[in-house]
Amino acid sequence: MGKLARKVAIIGAGMCKFGRNFPLKRNPDMWVDAWIDAVNRVDNGIEPKDIDACYVGNYSSDLFNHQGHLGPQMANLVGLTPKPAARFEGACASSGVAFRQGILAIASGVHDIVAISGVECMTEVSTTLVTDTLATASDNLFEYPAGATFPGLYAAAASAHFHKYGTTHDDLKRIAIKNHENGKENPYAQMQQSLKEIMASKIKKFESQGRDIPDWKDEMDFLGSSSNPMIASPLRLFDCSLVTDGAACVFLAAEDVAKKYTDTPIWITGSGQGSAALSLHDRGEITGFIAAREAARQAYEMSGLGPKDIQIAEVHDCFTIAELIALEDLGFYEKGKAAEAIKNGETKRDGIRPINTSGGLKSKGHPVGATGAAMAVETFKQMRGIAERNRQVKFDVEKALTHNLGGSGATCVVTIYEK
Amino acid sequence: MGKLARKVAIIGAGMCKFGRNFPLKRNPDMWVDAWIDAVNRVDNGIEPKDIDACYVGNYSSDLFNHQGHLGPQMANLVGLTPKPAARFEGACASSGVAFRQGILAIASGVHDIVAISGVECMTEVSTTLVTDTLATASDNLFEYPAGATFPGLYAAAASAHFHKYGTTHDDLKRIAIKNHENGKENPYAQMQQSLKEIMASKIKKFESQGRDIPDWKDEMDFLGSSSNPMIASPLRLFDCSLVTDGAACVFLAAEDVAKKYTDTPIWITGSGQGSAALSLHDRGEITGFIAAREAARQAYEMSGLGPKDIQIAEVHDCFTIAELIALEDLGFYEKGKAAEAIKNGETKRDGIRPINTSGGLKSKGHPVGATGAAMAVETFKQMRGIAERNRQVKFDVEKALTHNLGGSGATCVVTIYEK
Repeated sequence: MGKLARKVAIIGAGMCKFGRNFPLKRNPDMWVDAWIDAVNRVDNGIEPKDIDACYVGNYSSDLFNHQGHLGPQMANLVGLTPKPAARFEGACASSGVAFRQGILAIASGVHDIVAISGVECMTEVSTTLVTDTLATASDNLFEYPAGATFPGLYAAAASAHFHKYGTTHDDLKRIAIKNHENGKENPYAQMQQSLKEIMASKIKKFESQGRDIPDWKDEMDFLGSSSNPMIASPLRLFDCSLVTDGAACVFLAAEDVAKKYTDTPIWITGSGQGSAALSLHDRGEITGFIAAREAARQAYEMSGLGPKDIQIAEVHDCFTIAELIALEDLGFYEKGKAAEAIKNGETKRDGIRPINTSGGLKSKGHPVGATGAAMAVETFKQMRGIAERNRQVKFDVEKALTHNLGGSGATCVVTIYEK
Repeated sequence: MGKLARKVAIIGAGMCKFGRNFPLKRNPDMWVDAWIDAVNRVDNGIEPKDIDACYVGNYSSDLFNHQGHLGPQMANLVGLTPKPAARFEGACASSGVAFRQGILAIASGVHDIVAISGVECMTEVSTTLVTDTLATASDNLFEYPAGATFPGLYAAAASAHFHKYGTTHDDLKRIAIKNHENGKENPYAQMQQSLKEIMASKIKKFESQGRDIPDWKDEMDFLGSSSNPMIASPLRLFDCSLVTDGAACVFLAAEDVAKKYTDTPIWITGSGQGSAALSLHDRGEITGFIAAREAARQAYEMSGLGPKDIQIAEVHDCFTIAELIALEDLGFYEKGKAAEAIKNGETKRDGIRPINTSGGLKSKGHPVGATGAAMAVETFKQMRGIAERNRQVKFDVEKALTHNLGGSGATCVVTIYEK
């Protein structure tokens, strides 16, 4: 794997409010919201005529919205017709893939500025159909007919991790608590509530219904109760990310043009992508993801940085166990050691390496095709020092990383950002 | 739009037999067949370890096969795990998009050799569902609810072209006759029969049924009869391309490594991509496609060539009218002048600029996501002088072009090849 022939930077990034936006807003509406939000964050302004191409990340508008061919549609909505526009798919890493291809397109010399779009409108179909659609990112010859859906596949990874490394459900609870604590501070997040607040409203509801008040000492207690029902053992409801409608937009520019738009571009210094067999049973191990380790290896190699250099990261917490595994796959912690670090608060907003300051997929929401681009949006904000409310980390972020996983780990895109 | 920072060439290309391959063969099986066919055409051999990434073009395995996330699946089947693998979508131009992104990825300096995959397995669902799935490449807010499907959309383009330029259905018949004549010579084609042969077998069937024998003078007559039923006026059955299962594979390499694999690389000297609004009613005209003209403009500009330099072309004849429009959009003929040239035999295999020597989508078949890559396979063969049977053109092909259209013209990828 070689170096980029040309340096690439983010010059602006934005997103729409994540949540249950359908039917008031569908992919086209959310994309326009995200576009405007991103345009407003380009210091010296940007216009459609400046942009060479539109790279759309989307998992399955086919099954969610019975609409394919999103590339030209999204390009047309923001005035980019007749420029190149296409859709990129890597399951839940779809806009991570679009983002990476945008970087390569600029490095190739063919484009100077590319708009990266991530969109997904999931709530147009029933929750059952959401689960069924997401299951098409697993193997439909062996896993799907056996009844495996994503909570089950990640539950298998969690069980194996528990067995091999002594990880417990308490370790996973701490990830949920932290990410909700962060999402509370994100005005774009789907669930802007801490687990303490969620617990309190649950108690209030019990009171109003005249039921016995549970004697939960704290959120850990609440998360171990039947009010946090089992989904696929050992994963419970609050171990799962959300079903979300959302869109995000990132403008990438070549070095020689970036400075026209801003004095403080955020440089992409590392990009890696890896893959694995779709089926868990086809892999050598399930307590870690080879696609993620390969993507990280490439990104570190390209940037010349190592895990120790990374100050903050957005990682793919589609389930709490996925965040824990990501911290190990990225080399932040040795295999089996992430749980202890999480317990020590190292990944909290005031810890030594804050993880998922956006709230993560768990609290910000997970519109699958938009997630990778939204990670870049949070990274852009944290590095610029403009994260909203009380979410901005307290130190100057010079080096950051995003980790966008697809399916049960069959695709992973890792990106490294520097100021 | 800039130049490629690094030269890129095709070093091998192949495909599986197109046809109704399901259920004996599905996407994974067809892809492996195409891979082996391509590997066998790399002069000095190639192994998975030589290849850096797998770029998969596919329109909607989601709706056709209830399987998404094809990138890592296809990569895994040919031993490329854990290398980067993703899916690219631009409706019927999906593998044209994958091909172009592969070119950019090599030019970027990040990859040296990329495997381009095009796959689609359409016959797993009923013909009604094929039509319904393809319709998701049109606009599902206005066109689809109004009952518009692709035959209807291209019929509108045909009617407008007839009205504006005096084109007739006889002009379209000649395109079908030519493409079947070519497909007859292609052992990989779905329908290896000339229209004369199809007419003869029809007459035989009439005889065996004891029915009156039609007095068709020739294929033109046959194509004007009720044995070529109206699909969407003025388009009849033999104006439409086929419903097909198929896969194709192309190996792209950077200049500095290409020569290790072959002494006769086929260079990519021009690549362009354009887009348009999804809906016909959102465009200024429907007798030509702005996306195609823009893609052609970029490709000609990059290569420094013009329409007059192109000796052969594979163009996107999803309907006969689409081939006629392509010849005008590509600048081979002035607007409204292609019909006359076709009548004069200029586009035949022994004409001055043979078009669709493979048989085109009309006779070779149109597994939508595989079509763009399959065009590159035919071009590779013609330029190498290895096209099977009696299909090889009689002159040395030094400059060729492919034109891969998506939807009702909302995406187009144009590529220029030189020896």
